[in-house]
Amino acid sequence: MEKLCIIKIGGNVIDDKVLLSSFLHDFCSIGGRKILVHGGGQIASEMGRRSGIEPVYIDGRRVTDDAAIDLVTMVYGGLVNKSIVALLQSLGCNAFGVTGADGNLIPAIKRPVANIDYGWVGDVDAGRIDTGRWRSLLDIGFTPVVAPLTHDLQGHMLNTNADTVAALLATALASEFHLSLIYCFEKKGVLSDVHDESSVLQHLGMDEYKQLKDEGRLFEGILPKLESAFQAKAAGVKNVVIGSSEELQLLISHTAGTQITG
Amino acid sequence: MEKLCIIKIGGNVIDDKVLLSSFLHDFCSIGGRKILVHGGGQIASEMGRRSGIEPVYIDGRRVTDDAAIDLVTMVYGGLVNKSIVALLQSLGCNAFGVTGADGNLIPAIKRPVANIDYGWVGDVDAGRIDTGRWRSLLDIGFTPVVAPLTHDLQGHMLNTNADTVAALLATALASEFHLSLIYCFEKKGVLSDVHDESSVLQHLGMDEYKQLKDEGRLFEGILPKLESAFQAKAAGVKNVVIGSSEELQLLISHTAGTQITG
Repeated sequence: MEKLCIIKIGGNVIDDKVLLSSFLHDFCSIGGRKILVHGGGQIASEMGRRSGIEPVYIDGRRVTDDAAIDLVTMVYGGLVNKSIVALLQSLGCNAFGVTGADGNLIPAIKRPVANIDYGWVGDVDAGRIDTGRWRSLLDIGFTPVVAPLTHDLQGHMLNTNADTVAALLATALASEFHLSLIYCFEKKGVLSDVHDESSVLQHLGMDEYKQLKDEGRLFEGILPKLESAFQAKAAGVKNVVIGSSEELQLLISHTAGTQITG
Repeated sequence: MEKLCIIKIGGNVIDDKVLLSSFLHDFCSIGGRKILVHGGGQIASEMGRRSGIEPVYIDGRRVTDDAAIDLVTMVYGGLVNKSIVALLQSLGCNAFGVTGADGNLIPAIKRPVANIDYGWVGDVDAGRIDTGRWRSLLDIGFTPVVAPLTHDLQGHMLNTNADTVAALLATALASEFHLSLIYCFEKKGVLSDVHDESSVLQHLGMDEYKQLKDEGRLFEGILPKLESAFQAKAAGVKNVVIGSSEELQLLISHTAGTQITG
């Protein structure tokens, strides 16, 4: 099976021009097939404030109303996505920016209204991802750069969590490729002690994860990322790694970060 | 040679939800391979005003400064492009939104500074358009939806005239396809009398065009569009038609609009 790397970056890289430039250089130097999934960063909130679009929260959960989906479609699908594509192109990487709507690459459904109406938020319909289309794009020689947006096939764009997009795309493509899923974030890996930056776990299995979680020793923000990571591992993604965007080469060679062992 | 239709729409369609929906229905019903090129519309100016980004003019010419290129990248490349893609997908058309930066589909150069520095404005480098990449996308079954943005291969996005993008893309692809280039705008065709909406010319050749222009009988806004149209015709594009977005089917069957005869 051919190798494919799916790498996810978040706001800490996107919002910092120096970090982003350094990361994109490293990304370009990865041989073989690769896909970059990016989050949004602070720029959407900043653009929103400047345009008078204030984030709406219900019971502490962010809601994507009409103004908010237009905003993230502009910022994530337009500004952030195309800025990354143009930078990668200037470095010789044949980047190609996409959302889940383009070519229906990532079908989703609008999250059903239960207790909370999250608005224009999408849950990826991973079983309906057409892996042949992804393979075709990769075969042309393109490196997809994926914005965290999907669509509902009813004409609406949907705001979608970038960690989940990366995990479910990896899951769908795991049947066709020897897949590595790499989550880059601001720490060097999963810390066994949230107060000690050097307490990076080399490996993390489900049992240990549950124990650390139950003991409240994990940084709360990492829990959804770890849930996605374990799901991807369980679904057949060969390598799942979490670590720092500044150590991409080491994450790929398995000499830094935390390996999810399932 | 296989047929390919390149259809360009402008602000009058993009800014009007009813017109846009009706147009996209018609667009979907076109058989065979097709590409949609869209302009920007008023929404960029509106979003700019809301964000405190005022258009900058020098000697009456719009200048694309740093804030303006970010704005059009967001609005044209994000909001407008993905809204059209999502709508087309909901109608069963496998639309795929692109800018010229994606896959380096439309290489351009930043317009050189002569008397005026236009800022981040791109002139399409038509000779370097890789027709194989376009063919590959069409072969997959995608219908490209092109935002009027290119890049300079140095990491910067460039604002680019949509009429020119359509004409030069048609020119580049004319060697591979039996090409029809259709400019949709707010009138039923080129009017021989700007004050008479029914004075649509069925055909327009270069000699007659020059005469009408010299006599000041043409609507000034149509001159750049006609220059692009004649250039495309001269460069081997089989059919070049200008007409109303409300008569797309008739434009394609050559029973409405103005045929450019070169």
